[in-house]
Amino acid sequence: MDQLRPISFETGIAPNATASVLVTFGRTKVICAVTIEEDVPRWMKVQRVEGGWLTAEYSMLPYSTLDRKRRDITAGKLDGRSSEIQRLIGRSLRAAVDLGKIGARTIWVDCDVLQADGGTRTASITGASVALAIAVNKLVAAGKLAESPLKRLVSAVSVGMLEGEALLDLCYVEDKDAEVDMNLVMTDRGEFVEVQGSGEEAVFTADQMNRMLELGRKGLDEIAELQRRVIAEADKPDAGALEDLSAFFGRGK
Amino acid sequence: MDQLRPISFETGIAPNATASVLVTFGRTKVICAVTIEEDVPRWMKVQRVEGGWLTAEYSMLPYSTLDRKRRDITAGKLDGRSSEIQRLIGRSLRAAVDLGKIGARTIWVDCDVLQADGGTRTASITGASVALAIAVNKLVAAGKLAESPLKRLVSAVSVGMLEGEALLDLCYVEDKDAEVDMNLVMTDRGEFVEVQGSGEEAVFTADQMNRMLELGRKGLDEIAELQRRVIAEADKPDAGALEDLSAFFGRGK
Amino acid sequence: MDQLRPISFETGIAPNATASVLVTFGRTKVICAVTIEEDVPRWMKVQRVEGGWLTAEYSMLPYSTLDRKRRDITAGKLDGRSSEIQRLIGRSLRAAVDLGKIGARTIWVDCDVLQADGGTRTASITGASVALAIAVNKLVAAGKLAESPLKRLVSAVSVGMLEGEALLDLCYVEDKDAEVDMNLVMTDRGEFVEVQGSGEEAVFTADQMNRMLELGRKGLDEIAELQRRVIAEADKPDAGALEDLSAFFGRGK
Amino acid sequence: MDQLRPISFETGIAPNATASVLVTFGRTKVICAVTIEEDVPRWMKVQRVEGGWLTAEYSMLPYSTLDRKRRDITAGKLDGRSSEIQRLIGRSLRAAVDLGKIGARTIWVDCDVLQADGGTRTASITGASVALAIAVNKLVAAGKLAESPLKRLVSAVSVGMLEGEALLDLCYVEDKDAEVDMNLVMTDRGEFVEVQGSGEEAVFTADQMNRMLELGRKGLDEIAELQRRVIAEADKPDAGALEDLSAFFGRGK
Amino acid sequence: MDQLRPISFETGIAPNATASVLVTFGRTKVICAVTIEEDVPRWMKVQRVEGGWLTAEYSMLPYSTLDRKRRDITAGKLDGRSSEIQRLIGRSLRAAVDLGKIGARTIWVDCDVLQADGGTRTASITGASVALAIAVNKLVAAGKLAESPLKRLVSAVSVGMLEGEALLDLCYVEDKDAEVDMNLVMTDRGEFVEVQGSGEEAVFTADQMNRMLELGRKGLDEIAELQRRVIAEADKPDAGALEDLSAFFGRGK
Amino acid sequence: MDQLRPISFETGIAPNATASVLVTFGRTKVICAVTIEEDVPRWMKVQRVEGGWLTAEYSMLPYSTLDRKRRDITAGKLDGRSSEIQRLIGRSLRAAVDLGKIGARTIWVDCDVLQADGGTRTASITGASVALAIAVNKLVAAGKLAESPLKRLVSAVSVGMLEGEALLDLCYVEDKDAEVDMNLVMTDRGEFVEVQGSGEEAVFTADQMNRMLELGRKGLDEIAELQRRVIAEADKPDAGALEDLSAFFGRGK
Repeated sequence: MDQLRPISFETGIAPNATASVLVTFGRTKVICAVTIEEDVPRWMKVQRVEGGWLTAEYSMLPYSTLDRKRRDITAGKLDGRSSEIQRLIGRSLRAAVDLGKIGARTIWVDCDVLQADGGTRTASITGASVALAIAVNKLVAAGKLAESPLKRLVSAVSVGMLEGEALLDLCYVEDKDAEVDMNLVMTDRGEFVEVQGSGEEAVFTADQMNRMLELGRKGLDEIAELQRRVIAEADKPDAGALEDLSAFFGRGK
Repeated sequence: MDQLRPISFETGIAPNATASVLVTFGRTKVICAVTIEEDVPRWMKVQRVEGGWLTAEYSMLPYSTLDRKRRDITAGKLDGRSSEIQRLIGRSLRAAVDLGKIGARTIWVDCDVLQADGGTRTASITGASVALAIAVNKLVAAGKLAESPLKRLVSAVSVGMLEGEALLDLCYVEDKDAEVDMNLVMTDRGEFVEVQGSGEEAVFTADQMNRMLELGRKGLDEIAELQRRVIAEADKPDAGALEDLSAFFGRGK
Repeated sequence: MDQLRPISFETGIAPNATASVLVTFGRTKVICAVTIEEDVPRWMKVQRVEGGWLTAEYSMLPYSTLDRKRRDITAGKLDGRSSEIQRLIGRSLRAAVDLGKIGARTIWVDCDVLQADGGTRTASITGASVALAIAVNKLVAAGKLAESPLKRLVSAVSVGMLEGEALLDLCYVEDKDAEVDMNLVMTDRGEFVEVQGSGEEAVFTADQMNRMLELGRKGLDEIAELQRRVIAEADKPDAGALEDLSAFFGRGK
Repeated sequence: MDQLRPISFETGIAPNATASVLVTFGRTKVICAVTIEEDVPRWMKVQRVEGGWLTAEYSMLPYSTLDRKRRDITAGKLDGRSSEIQRLIGRSLRAAVDLGKIGARTIWVDCDVLQADGGTRTASITGASVALAIAVNKLVAAGKLAESPLKRLVSAVSVGMLEGEALLDLCYVEDKDAEVDMNLVMTDRGEFVEVQGSGEEAVFTADQMNRMLELGRKGLDEIAELQRRVIAEADKPDAGALEDLSAFFGRGK
Repeated sequence: MDQLRPISFETGIAPNATASVLVTFGRTKVICAVTIEEDVPRWMKVQRVEGGWLTAEYSMLPYSTLDRKRRDITAGKLDGRSSEIQRLIGRSLRAAVDLGKIGARTIWVDCDVLQADGGTRTASITGASVALAIAVNKLVAAGKLAESPLKRLVSAVSVGMLEGEALLDLCYVEDKDAEVDMNLVMTDRGEFVEVQGSGEEAVFTADQMNRMLELGRKGLDEIAELQRRVIAEADKPDAGALEDLSAFFGRGK
Repeated sequence: MDQLRPISFETGIAPNATASVLVTFGRTKVICAVTIEEDVPRWMKVQRVEGGWLTAEYSMLPYSTLDRKRRDITAGKLDGRSSEIQRLIGRSLRAAVDLGKIGARTIWVDCDVLQADGGTRTASITGASVALAIAVNKLVAAGKLAESPLKRLVSAVSVGMLEGEALLDLCYVEDKDAEVDMNLVMTDRGEFVEVQGSGEEAVFTADQMNRMLELGRKGLDEIAELQRRVIAEADKPDAGALEDLSAFFGRGK
């Protein structure tokens, strides 16, 4: 099927964050929250790197899967898959923002999966990009940033090959059966940010790759349009909210 | 003030759980989810204990506080406060259920704080008790349990002394300034489950304790009434939902 | 039974500590030691909190139980019960001392259980309070503190309900069978420091709580009297000991 | 530049392994070793999966970089990058072998970087594929496997865009300056196994991707030819070596 | 000086252990306890090794040193020095006992330093050897072991070179200044169990080694005599104690 | 047998290290590498110790043994044996160098076992001593050190008693069957650095010790001669290599 699952964004799900979004792709639901820390990682100070940083963390809530998923802290370490996903989210969003323009701050992007049904990493990137845009707009509106450091929107979607057909935005069952699994991260101007295709212990041809890229690109156009609409709507915070933010944001100074 | 903050329960927030509730006490919001594992902890097998077990885990999502809270896995260990709270939640809910009647299963109770503004442990217990009741009712309706193992409802609330006045259901700012902090867990029949009062590095008198107990008891009556109403409403799942549950629950066998 | 088990204090068990006590409640024996560090925790410096800090650590020696207890380091983490107990000991003793008067120092309170037969947490608090008083008196005598920061003595005891009877200072077998288990921490002036009552997966009534509180209060009066006697006796160190202490205590400066 | 760096394979570097190769891509050197364990991972037993498994581990030796790299065990955890690379190596090699034909065994693939100068993950996959083929051939020659489970050879190379030019097999300095970085894993029949392209916090166009894919494919043809030659040569172990292997391999039974 | 510091043994310090000794060498005090577990380590089962095992753990209590020593669990790992010492204690005591004669049991030897003033590892071995003998005698007396598995007594002492003189049983200050530090473990029949001499980043001659060996041997003769006396005395437990032991020891069966 | 196994040194195995050696004792092969860090450990700063430090790390590569050895990071901690060996290597090499003459630097000595067949710790010390001498000579030649801090060469060998015979440089099978196992570390002038003899759960006599010492001393004379030859040969780096080193070494300043 060449159709996206129903996609929606509910903003403000976690009011203590600078911005937050509950993003839904079909039955997949992810809480994406952006918070600001008035400090930079130690390595930036040691290496005297100017500007700020953006870092992402990803986790599946224990009740997001049909069989309860053990917490990372109980297992004693972050599993390899989660580590890989949060690195991908971080790289993708750093492509969206000019870190030289945010000052000596760290933008934290947290993605917690509330319900998992395939595509949690692409939903995370898509939702986090919206939360990031809203957060940045708030900071500009509150006078905390002179100009917006946002360079572009990023959005992500999965594509795959199932029984010889290219398939868009796979749910868990489709993903499990797919012969090839590809994750595409692109900008709203059609540039690539990340391409990760894997035969998952099998192989695929150049022709299959091209068909998947084509289908993915089409889906990402639609998603970017949805993102823009949500951001525009959220972009009208009332005066009271701005004052609160302004008060909070100044504390760390 | 002798008034509870506005309390609400939104059921079904995490659809892959057997039952889930987003509980709200004022600005405090906690996701409470109940999932069933068709196995018991190793110590029960070693010691040949009959019946099942109930265990609770508690965590604050990183964006639940104004200053982002580092994840447990990043800190490398569960902090002492969280460990203490999840032990309290577990003990309180085990008082609500007859573990001998649930078979060789583990009931997992997960409480994740989405927004923290005081009283997260009492909101967790109160919400988890509702989720537990709904889950148990579903299992009985689906024919998975012959009779309900639920012995009673438990609910919890905080009380404190602030500037000489007894105060009910403290928010963060009140809690921080209170001279005494007490957490009460009681049944819907007015029995005590847990009483934890602490001068928080100061002291309190028997008279103060009595006033706090009195105020807490009154609040818990109101809370139990709210719980009963939500459970009754949730207690009418449609036939389709029961079939899904039945199919899932049988898998582990 | 409304009687305490035989209680004794042997001071000086660990001579390298500033003060140490081997406290005995029946067959329960705990080493309580107080040491001084000429530094404060990192969070106090970051938050610019004045004065000093007191922190407690609790552990059961592997041979304190009939079945050998695995060391925390072998298990890889502090178990939840120990973490909870050491937090309780710390809170209770911080209620005894004016941290603003000890300078930029950390008072370490270590409690290691040599023999466990119920009530290790209450014996720990009671013994540590004695060790703390002796340590503080030594520091004043040695001229290291201008005045005593000790505000009051704290003592602790367990009470419970067993077969309908209120029971004082429970040993392991009684504790295991008790329907309710309560730990009381009070000052020598009859104020409450901590009250922790738990139905241990069952429930209890207000009347039962009152009977337990009454019995506990009576026991704590006796204990405070014993503590005062031991401290008074220990309070006459010879001149040589004071000189050693003085030399040691000045090193960190 | 569209040229590979000089590539070589030195077999037998770690004689206790079933097969081992020191692979060299320019100044990058990686020890790749294959060992066989006569057991399968726990999850295969629990889920009753037939056949065997292949798992990979990757590490940089501390003296492989100009600034000494701290060991994982000193840092206390595997860093995210290493975890991601070893997952990639494992997935790539599982595409090369029919796990249903190796019996209830685990094939361990270890890649330890002796000198790092860019492309350590692609060198690892390329070298490990050679070691795997040699190991499997030995097992067949020794009569331990009825037929070869090897489905294909896999090889890997990096490509990138530097100052507008597509570049093959990047060394560290080129990689650091490249605008786009892509890792290609393909079979010796020109099928894709993995494609991972990243703008590394920037973006790239479809045209750039096509040029990189083209260049990479050409390089991988050459690499596959080199692999085949080394395997053919190594494929003539003398009788004594086979006897040793046979004796060892039977031990676990 | 060629004299031992005053040495004493106080038995029964930890009554829940099978046997326990507080050993004193001058100002060094170590609690040595022996407990029995009715099981063997996993590796013995996997490798089908007959008989039992003996394992030792060593730790310094935080208040055993003048500057408080951080607990292992707080540091997150056992430090290298402690790990080395507990391996030495284990090896030394395994030389004392015939593991084939103790059945499928594990003998746990725990050494916790109460006061540290040099020679904690040699005091630990010496005290543990006494506790082991007493424990084994009790088990034989209680009919739990058909015959004594004890092959010999082991004892240990430190020797060193300080300003050109050989020195016996060094205290902390002497140890710190010594040019050479040697630990000798021998049997009561004059055989060597372990010899560990270290120039501690300097060197020593064969002549110095011979003088240290001579002095150590003399000291160990004296120590063995003291051990024998304590064991003989402890070897007359009253009937009640034996019955308790018998009851406990049979539980695991 | 009183013969050493064939010993060889291959220098430059890890070109990014300041100096590296692949040392071979019979079938035992260890990579020894020396790298320089322009910083000292935290404890030296805290305690204001002048000069530099030398620290060693030891690890067995997973394919160095016939049965694959699990990596330390997978086990979650350094095993006791490895910890003990790396402490021994560090102490031995610190006896070789005047740390007051190397400036505020840390010399890292890494020993990774490529093939294990007995005597990995003695091969490590012997190889590391060669790598250290070469590294130090390079630094002097490059003008980074005014004079050589090397005080002496150290070398190490194992000796043992097997069926009543003293045996030099034991391979794995001999070591496993030996009644006594001794490791000798000496200087090239015949002084002792470390002597570690263990009956490995048995005992040995003074006469046996003397025969082992005698045999070990003879072997170490031969080894020292081989070390001197390799160092002399390596000591003629061409001008280009020195320039590279000079450039690198200055970076950290």
